[in-house]
Parts: sequence; structure tokens; C-alpha cells
Amino acid sequence: MLPAAVLEQARDELMDWQGSSLSVMEVSHRSPPYQGLAHKAEADLRDLLKVPAEYEVLFLQGGATGQFAAVPMNLLRKKTRVSYLDTGIWSQKAIAEARHYAAVIEVASGHSSGYRDIPPEFEWQHDEASAYLHYTSNETIGGVQFQHIPDALGIPLVCDMSSDLLSRPLDLSRFGLIYAGAQKNMGPSGITVVIVRGDLLGSAIRQTPSIFNYGIQAAEKSMLNTPPTYAWYLLGLVLEWLKRQGGLEAIAGVNHQKADILYQAIDRSSLFHNPIAHTCRSRMNVPFLIKDTALESSFLSEAKQHGLVHLEGHRSVGGFRASIYNAMPLEGVNALVDFMVEFERRYG
Amino acid sequence: MLPAAVLEQARDELMDWQGSSLSVMEVSHRSPPYQGLAHKAEADLRDLLKVPAEYEVLFLQGGATGQFAAVPMNLLRKKTRVSYLDTGIWSQKAIAEARHYAAVIEVASGHSSGYRDIPPEFEWQHDEASAYLHYTSNETIGGVQFQHIPDALGIPLVCDMSSDLLSRPLDLSRFGLIYAGAQKNMGPSGITVVIVRGDLLGSAIRQTPSIFNYGIQAAEKSMLNTPPTYAWYLLGLVLEWLKRQGGLEAIAGVNHQKADILYQAIDRSSLFHNPIAHTCRSRMNVPFLIKDTALESSFLSEAKQHGLVHLEGHRSVGGFRASIYNAMPLEGVNALVDFMVEFERRYG
Repeated sequence: MLPAAVLEQARDELMDWQGSSLSVMEVSHRSPPYQGLAHKAEADLRDLLKVPAEYEVLFLQGGATGQFAAVPMNLLRKKTRVSYLDTGIWSQKAIAEARHYAAVIEVASGHSSGYRDIPPEFEWQHDEASAYLHYTSNETIGGVQFQHIPDALGIPLVCDMSSDLLSRPLDLSRFGLIYAGAQKNMGPSGITVVIVRGDLLGSAIRQTPSIFNYGIQAAEKSMLNTPPTYAWYLLGLVLEWLKRQGGLEAIAGVNHQKADILYQAIDRSSLFHNPIAHTCRSRMNVPFLIKDTALESSFLSEAKQHGLVHLEGHRSVGGFRASIYNAMPLEGVNALVDFMVEFERRYG
Repeated sequence: MLPAAVLEQARDELMDWQGSSLSVMEVSHRSPPYQGLAHKAEADLRDLLKVPAEYEVLFLQGGATGQFAAVPMNLLRKKTRVSYLDTGIWSQKAIAEARHYAAVIEVASGHSSGYRDIPPEFEWQHDEASAYLHYTSNETIGGVQFQHIPDALGIPLVCDMSSDLLSRPLDLSRFGLIYAGAQKNMGPSGITVVIVRGDLLGSAIRQTPSIFNYGIQAAEKSMLNTPPTYAWYLLGLVLEWLKRQGGLEAIAGVNHQKADILYQAIDRSSLFHNPIAHTCRSRMNVPFLIKDTALESSFLSEAKQHGLVHLEGHRSVGGFRASIYNAMPLEGVNALVDFMVEFERRYG
């Protein structure tokens, strides 16, 4: 979902960008107007996230799944081990890919709790010989989200923030590297943001594709080759929209409110429930189950009649899931809650 | 440059795709409507190129530069050498990247002719122990294009067709693999087409990022992770436009005509000239020089006043370059030629 104001601007400019009579898709990425666009997007992102000067901001292709490989390729730095937290499906995908490049230490796993909770930090089996510690800040399928930044005990902390970057303020100085596919809170699919501390660059393994070599891409300002120019443009529009909303503190306030309204409605209900520990419930993806599963299809079809779509739970877990990313307005959550109350009144 | 009809359709559908009240950017890539879009694009591409059934068609990210790495990672198949033709800057980039993975045999090089000609095939130093033979079908900067498919003498033939795929018919059965970034003749930047013979899959080296593992992506229908959904949509619109133009035979006729008109004008001129051997002049990118280089800036600024833009030669070679991809209409070439004649009348 993208903010309506962003889509309107994209439509209005699609055939004539800045009076050029050209679509932004047709403008060379080396031209001064496009360079201006690209630089402004980076400046806005740095501003919103208060990125410290010693960090590089990269705009790459390949999504988070590309970074599952790029992270160990770039950050292994002659070590043989890397540490990962397992909090669900996305962590596990990152772990499986990292095993192509190094031995993976699973520092902790949510497995024993059925991935309904994040193991407490005092139980984590830290490994100081690992090149870094990786975690997934928000599990979109399980609905588990870190509400604090963990301590990596001296090794670089790396985080997949694909589904919650820009949903709240962030202390980037705690991290060696963060990355995020854009398609949840930042823009369309096809562009990936990597923010990496400068001292970690320059040691990629020989087999690293140059487009994934952070040191090369930093030197080339993410333009080693033609970047995904239209996705970068849309990402820039979303960043401008975010600034107009008041920045990350403001959007975090709205996101918190949206999540509270929805979880409170679920917890009050006798028909619906959410199994995740309160301390790590996701404010981006709210999975919920219905006690009488025979009602699932009625719930989805009636919801659709009310204009409430994309409520199916992931095919691997079933049930329902409300994704309430930045672009989802408060009214959308209120409409869902009203519908759930009404549905329970009739079927509960 | 994209066809105006494609941009108009994209604009009209931007906020409401197929009556969904959603932008195509907001539609899940796993949803039936998006799957239909993706399958239709593949079917149209197979139809236009007459892709034999035993070839896989992949839609990836990372551009041709990503494929410079992905090709050796996937096709090395336990061999230690790969063969490359050097016909200019793009070949050399592919060669430099391949050296991360294998020893590169340069089968032939245009170096001795100043890259104004392709060395004749009887001079090529073929290496039958190489995993494949790679060439670049069109050098966009040098303006050198293969007008025939070379013989790889029994090893798989691999070709970077980034700048001329879909500009003319193609006998794919001659190739093991072809690849192309979309942004010249197929769509926007941010999506890359790979067409690979099925028997070459399944032997990628361990370090291959999964998003670049052809076997995995073929099994996942190019959706191992979220694909660049909007770029895929636009590519599909361009394919539909190409079919409306009459397919590749028809567009090749127009492209041939455009190139003939421009080269004839240059060859008739006493002021402008093109240094490339006639047998390998590019029908996509026509570089030309002006005898009195003091006139270069006047030519560019006056051309711009006539609505003729993007005529600067690449910064590495200077002079001028007219890119006459599929989306450039015949009228655009005629306008350029008229302007060149008039310019020569005044300054020649």
C-alpha cells in the first residue's frame, strides 16, 4: 500500500516530469535532474533516520533476499562464523542463505515457544568470534516484532528491517548495518535500502557480485550500473510524504495508536484472538485467529464486501492478518475493528 | 525512451488497475490478478521471440551487471575457464566481473582496430575447455553490433543483449543463455530478462546468491522473493505494444530503415562521420563525430532547441550518439537528419 497522495503525484507526473516532457523513467540516471532526485532521496532518508555521517546509504536491487547473501559476503571479513537470531520464517530464510558462506551460530530461537515470543536476552548464546549478530526486527508472518534494540556485546549488529524501517525512530548508531526491501513502508518493490557503517566496507569476498559489493556501490553512489530509476523516484516521493506527516516520531505515534486499537479489539473479543506475547507483538502485522474456523471464509468474504481486503493469513499459518504499515490510515483500522465487532455480534 | 502509448496506459491505470481501486504497485505478487499479469508477460515474450519450450524465461533484478556475475556463477559447471569476446566497453565489464570466478580466455578483441570492427571469426582463438563463449551483441558506446550469430563451436553460446533484444527476430536455439536489462527496448530499468536452456540449470556454485540462482528462480517462476512488480507490469505493456506493431519482423524493418537513413546522412556529409566498419554498425546506437570539434557545443544546444535531446556521446568517447531504440519513431530520426543537414549548410 502506498499513500494516496504519492500515487496521485506519480500519476500526474508520469508523462511529464518537472516540465521535461519526459517520464522520469526515460530520464538518464546520469543526467543532472535525475542526480538531483537521487541525492534528495538520500538526504531525506538521512534526515528522517538521523543517519550518522560515518554511515553509507545505498539503494540496491534484489530485495531483502538479495541481502541475505550480500550481508555475509561483505561482512564476513575472514571470519568463519556468523550469529543469527531465529524469530520466525524471515530469520530462517536469512539463516539458510548465510550457510552458503559461513557456519551459522543460532544464538537463540523462538522455536520452543512456537515463535510466540522472543527468547529473553540473558538466555542468548553469544559468540564473540562471529563476524556479526543478525536479527529480523519484524516477522511479518508470525507477527513478532522487537520493541527494543538488542545488545550484540561488541560485534556488529545487523538487522533486516524490511517491514518496519521508517515506521518509528531508530538509533542507527547501535548498528553495523541495516537493510530493507522498500515495499512495506518506503515505496514499491524493486529497490532495497542498505545503511552500513563505513568501517565495515572494503572486505567483501572475491565471489561477491559487484552490484552487491557495498564498498564499490558506496564509491559509485549506488550507480555502478543503471539503478531502478522509477522505484527510486517513488521512494523519494514517499520520503517527502513522510516528512509532511511530521517525520518518524509522528508516524510512530499513529502506528502505535493503530496497533493498540486493533490488539485491544482482539483481546476484548471472545471470537478472535492473537497468540503473541504482549511484549513483542508487531505494530506492523497483526495476525489473528478465529475460534470457529468454519467462519473463516464468511469473515473474509464479508470483509471484502466492506472494502477490507488482504486479510488472509499467510498460506503457511492460516487465519487472518492485518498489515497496518505507514500508508494504512487510522480510519482503515477503525473500519476493520467496527466490522469485527459487528461480525462477532452476528456469529459469536 | 518508452512508447507514448505505454506511458499513457500506465498513467491512466496508475491509481486503479483493472477496476481494483488499487495501483498495480499495491497488488500482492501472489494474488491471482498479478500472477495473470506475470504469466501473460512471459507468454508474450515467448511468442515474440519464439522461445523454444526447453528454455526457461526468468525475470530478475540487478541489470546486466548483475548477470556479469550470475552467468559464470551458474554456468561454470566445475570448469575453470570461460571464453569472452572483447568488442568494447560492455564486453570488458563482463570480462572483469567473470575474472572473480574463473580464468577468462579472450577469444578475440577489437582492440587492434580501435574497436571499429569485430575481428573475423576465422581469427578467433576458440577454447573448447571453456564453460561457455560470451559476447555482447551491441556495444552502446562504441556503436558496434553483431549482424549475425557467431559459432561457438560446440560450447554454450552466451550473449548480453541488453541493448538490442526485441529489436529484431532471433534464433534462440543457437544460444545456451541470453540476458538483457530491460531499459533499452523492453521497459524501465529495474528488471532483467534471462532466457536459459533448461539443461544448463542446477549447477550453480555454492556462493551464488539464491536470487541469482537460475535453477531456484526457474522453479519459483522468478518469484523466490517479491519481484519488481511495477517494472514487470511495464515490461508487459511494452510487449503488448510490440505485438500491436506487428512483432519483431515489423519492428526490425523500422529499425533497419531508421539506421539506414541516419548512416546515409552521415556518410553523405562532409562535416559528420562515423568510424565503424559498415558490416558491424549498430542499428541501435549511432555514434558520430564532427570534423570541427569547436562546433560540438553549438550542435548540441541548437539540437536541443529543435527538441532533439540525449545526443551527447558517452563521456568516455565524446562526440555525439543517437540512440534509436524501438520506441524512437521514424519521425524522430528524420527530424535529426533534417537538423544535421541544416546545421551543415550553415556551419559546414
